[in-house]
Order: sequence, then C-alpha cells, then structure tokens
Amino acid sequence: MNNFTFYSPTYFVFGKGTQHEAGHYVKRFGGSKVLIHFGGGSVKRTGLYDDICRSLEKHGIEYISLGGAQPNPRSGLVYEGIELCRKEKVDFVLAVGGGSTIDSAKAIAAGTVYDGDFWDFYEGKPVEKALPIATVLTIPAAGSEGSPDSVITHEDGMRKRGATGEAYRPIFSILNPELTFTLPKYQIACGVCDIMAHVLERYFTPTEDVETTDRLCEALLCALIEEAPKAVANPEDYGAQANIMWAGMVAHNNIVGVGRRQDWSTHNIEHELSALYDCAHGAGLAVIFPVWMQYVMKNDVMRFVQLASRVFGISVNFHNPEETALRMIERLKQFWSSLGLPVSFKEVGAKAEDIDFMAEHISYEDDGCIGGFMRLNAERVKEIYRLAL
Amino acid sequence: MNNFTFYSPTYFVFGKGTQHEAGHYVKRFGGSKVLIHFGGGSVKRTGLYDDICRSLEKHGIEYISLGGAQPNPRSGLVYEGIELCRKEKVDFVLAVGGGSTIDSAKAIAAGTVYDGDFWDFYEGKPVEKALPIATVLTIPAAGSEGSPDSVITHEDGMRKRGATGEAYRPIFSILNPELTFTLPKYQIACGVCDIMAHVLERYFTPTEDVETTDRLCEALLCALIEEAPKAVANPEDYGAQANIMWAGMVAHNNIVGVGRRQDWSTHNIEHELSALYDCAHGAGLAVIFPVWMQYVMKNDVMRFVQLASRVFGISVNFHNPEETALRMIERLKQFWSSLGLPVSFKEVGAKAEDIDFMAEHISYEDDGCIGGFMRLNAERVKEIYRLAL
Repeated sequence: MNNFTFYSPTYFVFGKGTQHEAGHYVKRFGGSKVLIHFGGGSVKRTGLYDDICRSLEKHGIEYISLGGAQPNPRSGLVYEGIELCRKEKVDFVLAVGGGSTIDSAKAIAAGTVYDGDFWDFYEGKPVEKALPIATVLTIPAAGSEGSPDSVITHEDGMRKRGATGEAYRPIFSILNPELTFTLPKYQIACGVCDIMAHVLERYFTPTEDVETTDRLCEALLCALIEEAPKAVANPEDYGAQANIMWAGMVAHNNIVGVGRRQDWSTHNIEHELSALYDCAHGAGLAVIFPVWMQYVMKNDVMRFVQLASRVFGISVNFHNPEETALRMIERLKQFWSSLGLPVSFKEVGAKAEDIDFMAEHISYEDDGCIGGFMRLNAERVKEIYRLAL
Repeated sequence: MNNFTFYSPTYFVFGKGTQHEAGHYVKRFGGSKVLIHFGGGSVKRTGLYDDICRSLEKHGIEYISLGGAQPNPRSGLVYEGIELCRKEKVDFVLAVGGGSTIDSAKAIAAGTVYDGDFWDFYEGKPVEKALPIATVLTIPAAGSEGSPDSVITHEDGMRKRGATGEAYRPIFSILNPELTFTLPKYQIACGVCDIMAHVLERYFTPTEDVETTDRLCEALLCALIEEAPKAVANPEDYGAQANIMWAGMVAHNNIVGVGRRQDWSTHNIEHELSALYDCAHGAGLAVIFPVWMQYVMKNDVMRFVQLASRVFGISVNFHNPEETALRMIERLKQFWSSLGLPVSFKEVGAKAEDIDFMAEHISYEDDGCIGGFMRLNAERVKEIYRLAL
C-alpha cells in the first residue's frame, strides 16, 4: 500500500425531502448571498427550484440564479457566472443538478475570487481558493458532489480539461434519491456505468497489499449490479435509487481508492469518443471499458480473475485463468447491454476511419503514454479502439 | 434506507514515516501551543515521542505533555489535563496512542473550553465546542481517530460513559502502520475483534434497502479475515497492518453504517464483562458476539445466512437456513480463537454467579431494553451471558 492523504470534509445530507434544508445549511456554513446555478428547465418544471428558493428565503438568505449549464459544461457560462458573482457580491455558490452543473459551479466559485483567468486552473494551477460550493444532486454519476474535481470544455478550441483542489470539495451536498425519479432510464444507466467506471479505474492497479480497498471496490460493484436493473426497470424505486446515489458518492470521494496507483486511461480514451460523436460519457465508457480490459488483461490476469470470482460469482477455471477473465468481460458487456447501454462502436455511430484521429488527439503524458495499470501509447490505444469495432 | 447526515472532515495522513509530519499539520490547522497527550512509556521507548517533539519544534510550535492515559481512560487525568491546558494556554491537543489516549484527549479538549464540569458531556450534553484535536494512532481498534466519540470512566463510582459530537472529530489523524510493529500479538487480535464488532454492530439491522452499506460492511469483514492472521503471525507485516489500520478507520467513521438502524447491545453487554474481570474490550467482544448472534438470529435468520455466504463463503443450506447461520457463528468463533482470543466465560475467568449483577448493571433505555436488531431486556441479556458459559 502506498502512502496517501485522504480528506473529504463535505457534510452530506441524504434522504427524502432534504432539499428543503438547503437554506438551513447555507446559513450554517456562512452563506448570505447565493448564486443558484442549474442546467436546463427540468429543475423548474419539477418544482425543485422553487423548493430551494423557499428554503433560502425562510432562512433570510438572498439569492440570484444562473441556468444553462449543459452536459460537458462550457467556459462561456463560467465567465458569465464569474462576472455575475462579482457584480452581485455573491458569497456562496449552490449547484442544483448533476455533475456538469456542479463542475460549472466549481469553476465559477474559483474564478470569482481569482485575479486571473479561471482557465489557469484547468491548465494545471492548483485550486487553492474558491467561494464555498454546495450541491443539491439530481443525477448520481459523476461523483462531483463529494470530489475535489471539475471538468470544463473551453469553447476556444473545444479543449476539455480537468481541475482539482481541496477548495473544490463541496461544503455540503444534499442527496435526495426522490429527485432521480424523473430521470430517463437511459440516463440512469449511463450514470451507473460512470460510477462503475470510477470504481474500476481505482480497482485496476499494480500496487500490492491493497486488500481493504480491493474489497471496498468490489462491494460497490456488487451493490450496483444488484440495484441498477431495479432502478432502470422502475425509476421510482426509492431503495434502488438510494443505494445507487450513495454508491456514486463513495465511488468517487476516493475512500475506496487511497493508497493505490489508479488507471484513468479509459476515461481519456472515452472522452474522444463522446467529444466526436456526442454520445453520453457513461455510454462511451460502456463501449471502451470492456475492450480496454481485453487489451490489458495480459498484464495481470489474476486481478481479472479476482474480479470475476468476487463480483460476478464466476467459477474460476484454474487451468485457464484467461478464459475466466474473458468470461467476466463478456458478462460485464451483457450487464451493461441489459441496462440499454451501447457496447460497440456501431451502437454509438463511431467509425473505424476516425480511430487514428481520436488516438492522436488524447493528451498523453511526457513519455507519450497514459495509464497506471498498463502504459498505453497512441498505437496501443488504436488497437483498443479497433477491438470495439 | 433511512435519511441520514454524514460528516467526516478529518484530514487523514497515512503511511510510512508520517509521524514526522505532525508539526506541519499542527501548523496548517492553526495550532501554536500543543498538549501532547499519551499513555504509558512505550511512545518514549520507541522514539515516537521524540519524533513528534522534533517535528513540532521544526515548525516553531510550543508544546507541553501529559502522559498516563490508561485503558478505560479515567476522569482524574482528564481533570488534570484541563487544568494544565488552561494554565498553559494550550490551543491544540495532540493524542499519541490508541483509542483510550485519544478518548482522553477529546475529553480534555472539550473540558478546557467549557465553563462547567466536562462530565456533563458524558451525561448526555452534546459536545459543540472543543480545542482542535489531532491524533497519531498507534493501535488500530477503537476507530476514535475518525469518529466523533469518546468513552471515559468516572472514578467516582467507576461509571463508564460515552460522549459524542462533531467537535470530537479529529482535525487530522496520522496513521502510520509501522507504529503497530511493536504491539503484542494479543493486542493486535483484540483490536481486530473490536474493528469487526464495529462493522457487525452496523450490519445487524432491521432497515431494508441497504445493499450498498451491507456490501461495504461485508467488504471490511472479508479484508480483516484475510489480513488479521498475517498481522498476528508477523506484526511487522506492513501490508497486513496497513490494511487493518485503514479498515479500522473506515469501520467506525460511519461511512459504512449510514441510513440504517444499528445495534450496539453487544458493546453494552461486553462493557460489564471487561469492567468486572478487567479483560480487554476486544477479548470480551469475542466472547459475547457469537452468543448474542446465537440468541438473536431467530429475528432474521436470512441476514445471518447472507453473512455466512458472502463473508465466510459457506455453502447455503436452503432447506435449513438456521443450520447455515449456526455454522457461520461457529466459524466466527474458530476464527477469533485462531487469533488467540477467548470465546467463552471460562477463558476470561468470568463466573455464572455474576451474570445477574452484570445484566442488571447495564444502562437500559426507557423501556428497559437495548438493541436495534432485537430488543433485549435484562432477562434476555442473562440468557445471552449464560450461552457463553
């Protein structure tokens, strides 16, 4: 196990009706004038926006609002938000929505108290200061409600970049599973796939002596495999949605990923896919993860066998562990497929002729590779894309 | 799943050599004059005390020290610590030791900034304010390094009571598994049993739809069953000790216990045993937990079957689930026994004639019962004790 630090100071408020406590918690954590940041019109249609306004008013908190955050949130709205916050002397940013809205809110919160261009943080400057950020989560997927991360796309060149820093951890996050009842089934499935990917990206590691976090990762995967089909079949299944929502936070606040080298290459490989074909991130991950597994399994086949046995209950073929690993990958594809997700290039409309462009467009590290479990250069990434044809 | 809040703002610093960072973190979190609180002489013998003093000096932090915290920490030393902190204008309390030392440090930290008698907190007053508390953990067991809890024994009447409150969450905790290398094997085993009990007390619940936390609890138990024998066989096995240490924190900061009714009656039933016979808390739990299980399993035998199957890999007897549950309990006893722990009254020197006294000495709730999985009155507790004869 490697040395590590772990810090997750967010106050989580979980359960039915908890959006009505937004005002109470903004006050408790020192906010007096709030920017409510949201995405499309759904938060207004469902009455969630009104619930939050009433809760803020009840506690004497002023607010203004800014909607329009979109999937793959853009820099333009961030600049607008920063200007608004400065002009209106906002001292607290409350994101109401999914990961994109929260990521956009984080960028606004950091940019407001920073002298330079907020984009500096997305070019590598650590985020050390930001207005306090809080969230009311409506989509379990990105884990941004408990993570120190934010991903923004700059409209100048459509560069998609991540920033990270302790100031990006939300002060509080309200998680009410009832707010997910109106999600389209496909979006629920995409969210689950994103959560499972966050776990798997931590799971595939070359680090030894990590049994505790291995087991915690496997636990989340087991729970998601149990609960996701229920939520997709009936989005108003409170128990299933609640289990997925808490798993989504635990999967990405890093408590199950500490002390081990992680491998985030699938996220990178997928980003090119969703950027080019405008498919959902979770859908792209369902296409990429199985073929990435197929390609890298030779690096440590027993880790795949462990996953097969412990999570999928597959009987191990001790004389041919590769066969067990391949069966597990097949089972994972079947599972994602059963949720309505695509698992091939064809199903997301991706084309063989774009493979070279995508593979060469990835931001590789200095040695021209990505990945912690197996180092992948552009040639290898091309082979992985090809496996998904 | 029930509504809940979860808040664990402690900054964890984990790994080899991390005690040398104590000064850095005290400074970062605003301390300028520290009380170093510790237990017996072992922290001086091992050089840990000196390491910490040097680290504080390096960062220009003043300190004084108070040793003498003992297992089942006492009120007398707490009063002494409070007086010392006030006189010396201490603004930060650093506990160096195991759960008892940390619990004692928490009481000192709260008492120093409180006008009345610190014991008020142990009679039910919520702990809302305390000096900042930090820890350097030397024994994985109590989980106090990440929990909001403290247990103190008042010397007037030897009343053992717990207090809880957000101000009791440590600001930072340093967890270096190397510091456990010098622990006696029996103490390692007792610590593991305490950690497993913290998980099991969360696991046995009547709350439905808790698959995510069920799986996380099972994950910790699996990891502990894997790692504990290695650590007991060779206390210098860094990987095993590291896995146990992180599991000990995760088991008790409540991330695996949220949203579900818990059952802490075994802790209550055990406290009487260790109070009367002066056995270690973890040892008493190894005696009590199996017989508690045996007594309450009729309440929801399938939860015991789930544990048998998922954690112990026991093949389920679907026609006779009780038999599967009993096999699991037997397996658990064998496991604890294999670590060198007692699993009967006889092995801790407890006597049948003390059962009535112990059962009647427990602090029951208003209805004369304890327990969240099954309500137990004094008569039932007596039956449980008798099963351990």
